[in-house]
Amino acid sequence: MQIINKSIRVLIVGLGLIGGSYAKALRKKGFFVSAITDNQNSIDYALDNRIIDEGYSYVEEKAVSSADLIVFALYPKVFSQWIDKHKNLFKPGTIITDVTGVKSCIVYEIQSKLPPDVEFIAAHPMAGREVYGVENSDDKIFEGANYIVVPTDKNTPEAIETCKDLGKILGFSRISELSPEEHDEMIGFVSQLTHCIAVSLMTCCENEHLVDYTGDSFRDLTRIARINENMWSELFMLNKEPLLKQINVFIDECMLIRDMIASDDTEGLKDKMRLSTSRRALFDKK
Amino acid sequence: MQIINKSIRVLIVGLGLIGGSYAKALRKKGFFVSAITDNQNSIDYALDNRIIDEGYSYVEEKAVSSADLIVFALYPKVFSQWIDKHKNLFKPGTIITDVTGVKSCIVYEIQSKLPPDVEFIAAHPMAGREVYGVENSDDKIFEGANYIVVPTDKNTPEAIETCKDLGKILGFSRISELSPEEHDEMIGFVSQLTHCIAVSLMTCCENEHLVDYTGDSFRDLTRIARINENMWSELFMLNKEPLLKQINVFIDECMLIRDMIASDDTEGLKDKMRLSTSRRALFDKK
Repeated sequence: MQIINKSIRVLIVGLGLIGGSYAKALRKKGFFVSAITDNQNSIDYALDNRIIDEGYSYVEEKAVSSADLIVFALYPKVFSQWIDKHKNLFKPGTIITDVTGVKSCIVYEIQSKLPPDVEFIAAHPMAGREVYGVENSDDKIFEGANYIVVPTDKNTPEAIETCKDLGKILGFSRISELSPEEHDEMIGFVSQLTHCIAVSLMTCCENEHLVDYTGDSFRDLTRIARINENMWSELFMLNKEPLLKQINVFIDECMLIRDMIASDDTEGLKDKMRLSTSRRALFDKK
Repeated sequence: MQIINKSIRVLIVGLGLIGGSYAKALRKKGFFVSAITDNQNSIDYALDNRIIDEGYSYVEEKAVSSADLIVFALYPKVFSQWIDKHKNLFKPGTIITDVTGVKSCIVYEIQSKLPPDVEFIAAHPMAGREVYGVENSDDKIFEGANYIVVPTDKNTPEAIETCKDLGKILGFSRISELSPEEHDEMIGFVSQLTHCIAVSLMTCCENEHLVDYTGDSFRDLTRIARINENMWSELFMLNKEPLLKQINVFIDECMLIRDMIASDDTEGLKDKMRLSTSRRALFDKK
């Protein structure tokens, strides 16, 4: 059952890669999409390329107050500041969602600040690319990707269903639900730890001379080492405890494997490799 | 200038993924290719699919003594034992090469064991897949890949050129030269360390429940975590010192980044990310 009907007006706040990709997908599906972002060039590009129906490089009150569904695609701290400043512009019944990569630190805070007739239901689209800006937006990045709805006790079943419906409309392959704490624990492992590892691999030693010799393994493990330092340092700091826990678990395991090699424990090493192989096989399934 | 002419007879010893892919590429280019491998099914498959011209599941003396160029695609220890047993079958002037992933521990030893009129020139094709056997052989894996010739003082310029020529004929994109020690240092970092990391990520905690939530980052970093435990444990143990050094350098860097997060050193973290981004950009160039 589709809950969201096409007569609703969608507002995207923050027209970067993800905001732009949301806009593109929704407009293709027939929704009226407006955007607010602080860069006039992004608005011009999005209008010229029919990614949005209307757009503003300032907070146009009517665009906010006429929206039924608002997607915030901003960095977490900017998102929170935006709500502080403009929360009185929302019309009653507005549903707000986001794309933020950390949840515990932001979801409860935003929910507590909003007027009682405006509902924030958090979501994390697990999609991205190593490029930025609305110019690179691409709704195909949602194909085959996971979309996680992150409700709290404050959310209504209707808003949760609306948010899942949005994930379906955007074209995500798998839509699931996690609490903010479960989300942050998971994301600390599958996303933040992997980015720490990729950066460490690139920075741990001079390796520029290795370009001519490298195989695909090293390329694969460092694809995400091209990293937006402003976004990711903010995400790391906002998810500090779960991330530190995951880094330590990983370092301990690296040390264990190192010690197996050092002590010629071939059988122990093979056991680790067999476990690794069987677990990894699960992740190939779509 | 092409040194290898098509009238030479090539023998592949060990018809797995890499041996089979060599055979496929060479036969397509018009070479007469024979194979020796210990599995009759592999020989039958390769004959049925015209990957080889003739093949034996035992050491057929004539196949060895009539070969001008022999490629050993065996695990390092099996390769060394094969040479011990059969080195007197080679005809004078035969050139031997290999595909072994470690070099210092094998190259000098093999060279010292061979009759004086048989030359071993080592090479490492930096290509592979997470599947095994001649049934999965595919000469396209050499496209865009690196081929490293690993000569010692004992090698003649002619054999080095012949080996580079083989890399070109196989279709490798970049052909370079490293000493055995440089090779092992490099491979400890770009290949063995990355496999240790991928395995550690899969084994450091229960993560099977994360299948529904993961993004591409985790998939990319663990693609190589489906690992042949017999081959890789042997390669790790044979390259123990360079690998342990690289693991320690990497663990130290992970700890440094962890401590930056723990101490809110956002600027330090951003510096690391900027260095990572600029270095990784080089690896995108082909």
